[in-house]
Amino acid sequence: MRVLGIDPGLRFLGWGVIEAEGSRLRHVANGVCLSGTGELAMRLLALHTALTDVFHRYQPETVAIEKTFVNKDAVGTLKLGQARGVALLVPAQFGLEIGEYSPNSVKKTVVGVGHADKRQVEHMVKMQLPGAEIHGSDAADALAIAICHAHHMTGPGMRMRA
Amino acid sequence: MRVLGIDPGLRFLGWGVIEAEGSRLRHVANGVCLSGTGELAMRLLALHTALTDVFHRYQPETVAIEKTFVNKDAVGTLKLGQARGVALLVPAQFGLEIGEYSPNSVKKTVVGVGHADKRQVEHMVKMQLPGAEIHGSDAADALAIAICHAHHMTGPGMRMRA
Repeated sequence: MRVLGIDPGLRFLGWGVIEAEGSRLRHVANGVCLSGTGELAMRLLALHTALTDVFHRYQPETVAIEKTFVNKDAVGTLKLGQARGVALLVPAQFGLEIGEYSPNSVKKTVVGVGHADKRQVEHMVKMQLPGAEIHGSDAADALAIAICHAHHMTGPGMRMRA
Repeated sequence: MRVLGIDPGLRFLGWGVIEAEGSRLRHVANGVCLSGTGELAMRLLALHTALTDVFHRYQPETVAIEKTFVNKDAVGTLKLGQARGVALLVPAQFGLEIGEYSPNSVKKTVVGVGHADKRQVEHMVKMQLPGAEIHGSDAADALAIAICHAHHMTGPGMRMRA
């Protein structure tokens, strides 16, 4: 089953596609959608176009996204929310359900502990997806989310939360 | 010129369309897009579909949206942000620029004071758009945003902020 992980963000929206057959995982592709520096609506349009292209190109069968922690930075939360709205819309437009996982849950699955740092996550993603060339930490996070989703799926198209 | 105002929200997304010829305003239509009670992504898809339908049906030439005040309610800010992301995406998909106005600026334009309550706004919207049947306070707010945008426009397609 082809799994797409999304690490939402307004500036950098990380994505990673893996193929999961039981517990065997294979890297397919990863990257980062950039929104540029224009007006907010144009940036959201750029993310929507780029992410839609990822769906067309890699035909994921199931999708997972990072749960957002809201924090005291209300301006940052609003920005992330707007990007996340687009990141959730695209899979819905393709008729796919979306698994949501907290950052801690992703780290626990991929690294074994909930408070791993970015380097550890990237290292373990590379270990689990040998040969993958990873386009930065947002793409690594997205692959980690896809790995987490693959581990939590109990059947085709099954929607899981953790 | 046909002006669409949007009052973004996840549960209720108000919209209002007016025709502006110089200082003369005419009501065209108003309503509320509902996102239902399903999963977040499906609710965002419902908003996207309903708002896209408004664009197809009423063919606005310019669009305005309420600026969002971020507050201490981070969970609410994230929800609103996700809906606002979709509300900004649709006009961008139609190639339209978007005017953004703070709630106070809308009230100042429509009511004359920045701290008017909802009933005052609705009353003044009705005064300025005689004969309009208004579908609740979110639609009234959306019409107020459209009126504000019409007043601030200095030329066709001109993008203004206040």
